[in-house]
Amino acid sequence: MADLGFVGLGIMGKPMAGHLLAAGHTVHIYDLVADNIQLVAQAGGRPCSSSKEIAQKSTLIFIMVPDTPDVEAVLFGKDGLADGLKSGSIVVDMSSISPLATKEFAKRLGARGVKMLDAPVSGGQVGAKKGTLSIMVGGPVDVFEQVKPVFELLGKNILHIGDHGAGQTCKVANQIVVALTIEAVSEALVFASKAGVDPMKVRAALLGGSAQSRILDLHGERMIQRNFTPGFRIRLHQKDLNLAQQSARSMGISLPNTAMAQELFNAVAAQGGIDLDHSAMVLALEKLAQHKVSG
Amino acid sequence: MADLGFVGLGIMGKPMAGHLLAAGHTVHIYDLVADNIQLVAQAGGRPCSSSKEIAQKSTLIFIMVPDTPDVEAVLFGKDGLADGLKSGSIVVDMSSISPLATKEFAKRLGARGVKMLDAPVSGGQVGAKKGTLSIMVGGPVDVFEQVKPVFELLGKNILHIGDHGAGQTCKVANQIVVALTIEAVSEALVFASKAGVDPMKVRAALLGGSAQSRILDLHGERMIQRNFTPGFRIRLHQKDLNLAQQSARSMGISLPNTAMAQELFNAVAAQGGIDLDHSAMVLALEKLAQHKVSG
Repeated sequence: MADLGFVGLGIMGKPMAGHLLAAGHTVHIYDLVADNIQLVAQAGGRPCSSSKEIAQKSTLIFIMVPDTPDVEAVLFGKDGLADGLKSGSIVVDMSSISPLATKEFAKRLGARGVKMLDAPVSGGQVGAKKGTLSIMVGGPVDVFEQVKPVFELLGKNILHIGDHGAGQTCKVANQIVVALTIEAVSEALVFASKAGVDPMKVRAALLGGSAQSRILDLHGERMIQRNFTPGFRIRLHQKDLNLAQQSARSMGISLPNTAMAQELFNAVAAQGGIDLDHSAMVLALEKLAQHKVSG
Repeated sequence: MADLGFVGLGIMGKPMAGHLLAAGHTVHIYDLVADNIQLVAQAGGRPCSSSKEIAQKSTLIFIMVPDTPDVEAVLFGKDGLADGLKSGSIVVDMSSISPLATKEFAKRLGARGVKMLDAPVSGGQVGAKKGTLSIMVGGPVDVFEQVKPVFELLGKNILHIGDHGAGQTCKVANQIVVALTIEAVSEALVFASKAGVDPMKVRAALLGGSAQSRILDLHGERMIQRNFTPGFRIRLHQKDLNLAQQSARSMGISLPNTAMAQELFNAVAAQGGIDLDHSAMVLALEKLAQHKVSG
């Protein structure tokens, strides 16, 4: 069994690396935060002092860090993976980052004989802990098949979407739909509530028809119960919609409601809510309406 | 068993009146189109020459017509129901119309000793035929309980939402969510497709996670397969979003993405698509992007 590497041991990476260890893999680990390394070392992870060292000791390396510049630093920064990667190794980036940057990274690694997959996930911290993440994979299908047994330790709904960047594109599409459905449910509940109708009854009625969605079910309930504890933070969803907007601009397409959803997130952030759950987007519409859904 | 009346025998009213007849009710029928009366008469309906005559012969009267002015004409126009209604009769308006006008109509009928329910439906022509409509009811709960056995001949998900107008408010909320979810799926599929990723795989991946919705499933598939045969026509959804926008303005609230969705419907209408299925909203985003989801 090949040695695995894992860079990025935050709220997602920690439980994910844990599943790999629990399955009996040797996992070399690194994080910018020493405490995170210590915690995963207690579960059997082998601490490294840099991404470079990970690359020297492993042939299948996972990355789970916050954003595009973080992935770039892990790959190509000082003492980064690129300084230690062996030809034939595989890098699997499970972070949610720019599809365009991903294609570029895959190209640069490919020039060194290193294979890459982009494999962003949805399902959040809960999914990471339970090993039930959805994993959307881009890259060569033979590399996907090779890594699939390891993906199966981390998630349930594991799909090969297409070539390099396709996983990230799929994740961005996911985040567009989630944000805009939250916005849709927000408008509907503010509307009904302002008209004097019980939003919980509206939610129940709508769940029985063509307006049904997981967001209406879960986030609709959060809005009505005023439970904005994350969950998934507005701060992160802003990052994802920023990826959508950047990519859309560079591809030359128009995403009008994504733009509006981002502005509503910005408005909630302006009210101090940047670390609330993304269902708190409703607060911006409530501010515009001077009316609360529960009111 | 009280005699029933049914005004409005179009693509929804015809099968609905049919279910009442099939259950053994006496149903007095009227429509502006003589052929529609003839068709329902063949199933046992008793033709009347006006809404007034329906009101004289029935004590529980259903209305299923296209829009607010149509309901007003049926109720209070020349030879309308109001000219023949007996004190103690019940009028059930199953059309999708203005919540505010509904409250006004209920008040005017109440002054004559006539009870009213607003009971708009979702589920479309298919739901009407199968008797599986969702029915969202506003009005006094005792009147709702009285009419409920008849509703059960027409639908499955029958909910009392609140007082007069609450059913219509709930229906408008439903149409907001449906339109904005169609818009969300449209943006995501145009984005993915323009990035060179198979939209069918994106749809499949997203259905397994928090982006899941009935719209992503059904309307997403329609967009990818370029099947815009209605279904539910853009023309009717424009009417519903107009109700949302009018009501929002008069209540003093702001629905930014509803406004954008309406504009996208307007753009599809401008391209000649007003009688396409509402999933054809994607055509407006494709026009902006100069890129087709299937392309």
